[in-house]
Amino acid sequence: MAVHQLHYIAVVVVLIVSSSHAFDISYNATHFYVSLNGVELIRHSPEEPFLYVGSGIPTFEGQFGNYDVEDFVEERIALIDFLVDDQDPISVHFTLSRLDMLQVEIRFVTDVDGSLYYGEFVSLSDGINRVWMRLVAEEDEHVFGGGSQFSHLNMRGKKFPIWIQEQGVGRDKNYEITFKADQRDGGGGDYYTTYWAQPTFVSSRLYYAHFDTTTYSELDFRADDFHEIQIWGNSPSQFHFFTGSSYIELLQGLTGYLGRQPMPPEWIYNGTILGVQGGTEAMLNYIQMAEDHGIKVSGVWIQDWAGRITTSFGRRLFWNWEWSPEQYPNLDTVIPELKQRGIRVLVYANPNLNRLGGLYQEAVNADFLIKNSSGDPYIVDYGEFFCGIVDFTNPNASQWYKDRIIKQNMLDLGISGWMADFGEYLPIDAVFYSGAKGTDIHNEWPAIWAQVNREGVEEGGKMGDILFWMRAGYTGSQRYSVMTWAGDQFVDYGLADGIASVIPGTLSLGMSGYGMNHFDIGGYTSLFDVTRTEELFLRYAEMAAFTTMMRTHEGNRPDENWQFYSSSHTMYEFARHTKIYVALNDYVNSTIRENHELGIPVQRPLFLHYEDDERVYNIQYQYMFGRDLLVAPVIEQGRETWDVYLPTDDWIFLWDEDITSAGGETLTVPSPMGHIPVFFRSQSQWADTFRQLRDIEAVTVTPGPPESMTTSRSSTAMASHFLLAICLTIMASFW
Amino acid sequence: MAVHQLHYIAVVVVLIVSSSHAFDISYNATHFYVSLNGVELIRHSPEEPFLYVGSGIPTFEGQFGNYDVEDFVEERIALIDFLVDDQDPISVHFTLSRLDMLQVEIRFVTDVDGSLYYGEFVSLSDGINRVWMRLVAEEDEHVFGGGSQFSHLNMRGKKFPIWIQEQGVGRDKNYEITFKADQRDGGGGDYYTTYWAQPTFVSSRLYYAHFDTTTYSELDFRADDFHEIQIWGNSPSQFHFFTGSSYIELLQGLTGYLGRQPMPPEWIYNGTILGVQGGTEAMLNYIQMAEDHGIKVSGVWIQDWAGRITTSFGRRLFWNWEWSPEQYPNLDTVIPELKQRGIRVLVYANPNLNRLGGLYQEAVNADFLIKNSSGDPYIVDYGEFFCGIVDFTNPNASQWYKDRIIKQNMLDLGISGWMADFGEYLPIDAVFYSGAKGTDIHNEWPAIWAQVNREGVEEGGKMGDILFWMRAGYTGSQRYSVMTWAGDQFVDYGLADGIASVIPGTLSLGMSGYGMNHFDIGGYTSLFDVTRTEELFLRYAEMAAFTTMMRTHEGNRPDENWQFYSSSHTMYEFARHTKIYVALNDYVNSTIRENHELGIPVQRPLFLHYEDDERVYNIQYQYMFGRDLLVAPVIEQGRETWDVYLPTDDWIFLWDEDITSAGGETLTVPSPMGHIPVFFRSQSQWADTFRQLRDIEAVTVTPGPPESMTTSRSSTAMASHFLLAICLTIMASFW
Repeated sequence: MAVHQLHYIAVVVVLIVSSSHAFDISYNATHFYVSLNGVELIRHSPEEPFLYVGSGIPTFEGQFGNYDVEDFVEERIALIDFLVDDQDPISVHFTLSRLDMLQVEIRFVTDVDGSLYYGEFVSLSDGINRVWMRLVAEEDEHVFGGGSQFSHLNMRGKKFPIWIQEQGVGRDKNYEITFKADQRDGGGGDYYTTYWAQPTFVSSRLYYAHFDTTTYSELDFRADDFHEIQIWGNSPSQFHFFTGSSYIELLQGLTGYLGRQPMPPEWIYNGTILGVQGGTEAMLNYIQMAEDHGIKVSGVWIQDWAGRITTSFGRRLFWNWEWSPEQYPNLDTVIPELKQRGIRVLVYANPNLNRLGGLYQEAVNADFLIKNSSGDPYIVDYGEFFCGIVDFTNPNASQWYKDRIIKQNMLDLGISGWMADFGEYLPIDAVFYSGAKGTDIHNEWPAIWAQVNREGVEEGGKMGDILFWMRAGYTGSQRYSVMTWAGDQFVDYGLADGIASVIPGTLSLGMSGYGMNHFDIGGYTSLFDVTRTEELFLRYAEMAAFTTMMRTHEGNRPDENWQFYSSSHTMYEFARHTKIYVALNDYVNSTIRENHELGIPVQRPLFLHYEDDERVYNIQYQYMFGRDLLVAPVIEQGRETWDVYLPTDDWIFLWDEDITSAGGETLTVPSPMGHIPVFFRSQSQWADTFRQLRDIEAVTVTPGPPESMTTSRSSTAMASHFLLAICLTIMASFW
Repeated sequence: MAVHQLHYIAVVVVLIVSSSHAFDISYNATHFYVSLNGVELIRHSPEEPFLYVGSGIPTFEGQFGNYDVEDFVEERIALIDFLVDDQDPISVHFTLSRLDMLQVEIRFVTDVDGSLYYGEFVSLSDGINRVWMRLVAEEDEHVFGGGSQFSHLNMRGKKFPIWIQEQGVGRDKNYEITFKADQRDGGGGDYYTTYWAQPTFVSSRLYYAHFDTTTYSELDFRADDFHEIQIWGNSPSQFHFFTGSSYIELLQGLTGYLGRQPMPPEWIYNGTILGVQGGTEAMLNYIQMAEDHGIKVSGVWIQDWAGRITTSFGRRLFWNWEWSPEQYPNLDTVIPELKQRGIRVLVYANPNLNRLGGLYQEAVNADFLIKNSSGDPYIVDYGEFFCGIVDFTNPNASQWYKDRIIKQNMLDLGISGWMADFGEYLPIDAVFYSGAKGTDIHNEWPAIWAQVNREGVEEGGKMGDILFWMRAGYTGSQRYSVMTWAGDQFVDYGLADGIASVIPGTLSLGMSGYGMNHFDIGGYTSLFDVTRTEELFLRYAEMAAFTTMMRTHEGNRPDENWQFYSSSHTMYEFARHTKIYVALNDYVNSTIRENHELGIPVQRPLFLHYEDDERVYNIQYQYMFGRDLLVAPVIEQGRETWDVYLPTDDWIFLWDEDITSAGGETLTVPSPMGHIPVFFRSQSQWADTFRQLRDIEAVTVTPGPPESMTTSRSSTAMASHFLLAICLTIMASFW
């Protein structure tokens, strides 16, 4: 291991100041200060320097998308001295140094519109591959963002590695599920593991900071008096700041920079998307059964549309992204028929191609796959399931994926959307067409994958009608991804990875510039004999009615876990939640429009609208659904009542006009199954819409397994027989 | 957090070279090299510097002796430049620096005898509180030592924090017991957690390195081409090197520097020490029962000699170190009677004093206790069990402990030894008489505690007759401690904390200069419904016969765990092992004498005698017991055969003259209960002694619980009734 030639290190950083002098920069011989619109951001002194530089030798261990990243820091040196080299109306140019020989140049810049404020590393000499930057912090400050953070909405007091990976199973080293998952394959995760990490945060001091890098980085909020941002690599580019008079203004600024999401297709408002499998007949039967029970169905999502192959683990989805007529006979004619009935068909794709498929062979022949160091296709073994990965750094490969898979195999077939899965598995030792290093492109990959999807839809002329939803994300996903989802929750009530976790996961993503999210109704991961119960499925369902969109998933072990079709009781209850969602359509649409136009997320932390109430800053399991609904999902088993904190406002309980509050208090409200604790603002223009939800009632049948169905409706008897047939065809494991 | 004034940093290090020029130091303008007797130790270049300095801000979290130590490293700077300032026959003086202003001075020294070679930090300016030093490493090099390391005898490839603490329960984050212990109180431990950590190692390049510091340090053996030693604090003093032509020579050198252990009292050779409790009558009955079954008894250890007090957790040992006549009536007259019969009485003490005891009050009145920041006695809550800690940095307090407790309460009573427990719990935020910082004295504390014990015995004129055994240790314990033990093994077969772990724990301690060790026969910690079985007890017992000494412990839950007295079968089998130990007395004594005189440990890694055999370097579950016995304990449950690796020599299986080997092979040998796999060297002068062990046979009775005892011996019927009485008086929990 060599110490790089730090004698010659020079990092040039530039800070541009607008003619309106939004950046206020002052300095003397030893100190300098940078404020933006009155918010002090940087305070440099010899004792508390702004910048540290150095070098480190990283190790990345792990498998199956779970990474253990360690860094051996060889040097870390405070840049104590500085000179102001140059100054013009829009920028100030600093050279930061240590002992004359160790230098960094930074330019602080305001763009010509005076709307963008950033620091810029102008040059960074060979040898530096770590930069640590400190921003002013106050002891009672809160920070939010970091991408989709499932454990901590308020990130203060913790360090957050920014590295795209599996979110983990259990995600809490003190939780038994996590221990077992770690024992199994190191996949237990931790509080910071997420499919969507992003070096962006919003501070309660009313500024946002965003760091333009694709390398590994860390947001360290542990210290009382500073935030420290670590960035790897030898070319950190810019770090952006924006201040505002409110969080909403900050999010407008952030999404103005990062990009905002398009409006989703309007057909999603028609009800839920049903995740089912098993072939055309099974699909149609599921739809029929759902509609017979009153479930509002907007689409049917068939992840096995490309067929299945058999491995020693069982039958797996065939990752060869084209319609399998064997698996789905007549799908081409069924799709338009269903569309006529207002039901869309959605499928599944990811960047991998199974080595046994025709598309893999096409890609190999055209040299479109990521390579290993020997120049052969980089093959990932997903468990006797060998795949190549399309190299999206090659424009021709991306075009091929868009043409052959998105346009030809999906859009031309008439399908209306897909799960655009994966993005977090990119091997760091792979060789890319662009010459990018695996560690440099790893974080960016999900955004590139999102771009391919979006461009494919746009080139197909279908934007506004197609819903694709992505799991992994990073800076850039904001402008490309049509929809995201919260990943693979464990089918339990664990705070860090159970039903609760989707709430901070969604709210933190909103604070990172991505304002729409949804989740697998019921959760996904079932391991160690823990299976989804009817109660859990329905608690998810009642929450989903108060989110952007509804979609079920059968999970990784369909036949062992409770499904929407597992009983008539479930179907009738679920039907009611889809009706609630549909009844809220206009409100949801107006809220999504706020996200689309202004970057105000659909689901919002309470402090977005009640920023003066200090108590709301650490509430991460309640949210505002739009401006007027306060939602407090039940995230524990067997609860008949639930405590809801209400900030100061005029509140009416959604299910009982007699329960009201002027806020500033915690109310204990009834929370029986099917009645998620929700309050609305009495002065809302939607108040009558909300009140009308009380009239939506479910058909009453006894809860329980199919055997105990007591309703006389004809479809129910069919359901239990049909279930048996379904069980025989559905496979337990699914990627 | 302030960056200290690194502008003014100067660290002075001196390396003294003897007139015989054992240190070979060469340099040019940019490079320097330090070798000792041909072994290259230091290789400095601008690209691979020898020394890094910087500053860090540590956090110590934890409870009950379990620490979570983290360090926020603010700066870490390579000292690239150097000057040779001065040179004389015994020393060379270097100034290491960075960019002229960042300096460290080191002197490399050979003492006047030419037998001690060390580097010395002559001065270290304010601001530096971290030093990282790199020594030359080769890729195939092995390193051993680090104190008592229970998971890794060969430390290469891992980083070892040197910080005295609880060894942990399970000690493996992938082990379920560890997970449960972490959930319970954070006490699960890890591969490096140990009661005895020490910044000392022996390299297979035939040198040892020892670092004189009492602060937190780390030995980092992860890199291929260097070892990195991290030392905290602003005054690292010396780092010692010694080369030799063999490991034995290295250990002679190391123990010559650190000190060697005295010969233990000869009465330990008379058999096992029995760990029992419950009062004088119970004690005598246990002895009688043991002797009736043929168990050779050298002593009886009564940890409850000072009585018990009641808390809501149950009855606990009363930490007030004086004989309780209520608990042990007539002990003063029984002791000499037992001594007449060749049986010694041993007790228990630690540095804590229960607040309810008279000794606590005495210590308070004399101002002999460690204080908190308010100036009051620092009280540790061991679970409704509040204690002060005697401040051994106060010479008067140490003298009081020696006079009042060791001499008056123990020696004058006629007792022959004690467990000198604890040493790892020292609170780091306490205030000491000497003014020492808690973090600076924490590691040293066990050695200070050992010194008090040894001086007490010496002042009482009893050295050579008294056995005290300690758990925690550090540099310095070598010269003070009469005996050590392997801590609190979990009562299972887990590699990291079960029966296996005592072997690397003992061997690594031997490579750190402490050559005698023993363990609780049966293990100690029983939690989570895991209890000691008869098989485990007897596997421990058969191994103990081939160690320095034998001692049983009832464990933390005596009535739920298998004891030596749990069945006649156990007693007869155990009796045989004590007879084997006694039959080996002369051999054991000669081996202990080698440790006493030369520092060659009693239990030895195989490479100590077979250093040319590359295969033995990673064998950590076999050992040489003295020069002539190779022991391969069975460390798994239910094994009837066992694989033993034999290096090249002439070997005869201990239990069967027909099983022989010339070595260089792995043999599978029978390993039924009671017949631990052992080979002896055919040319050993003790060969006949070893052969005679075959004639020692146990009385045969059916294994099982007391109910199934089938022997007609009169004592057995007594045993089972007596057991019931014992169970009523023995307490489950014990500190």
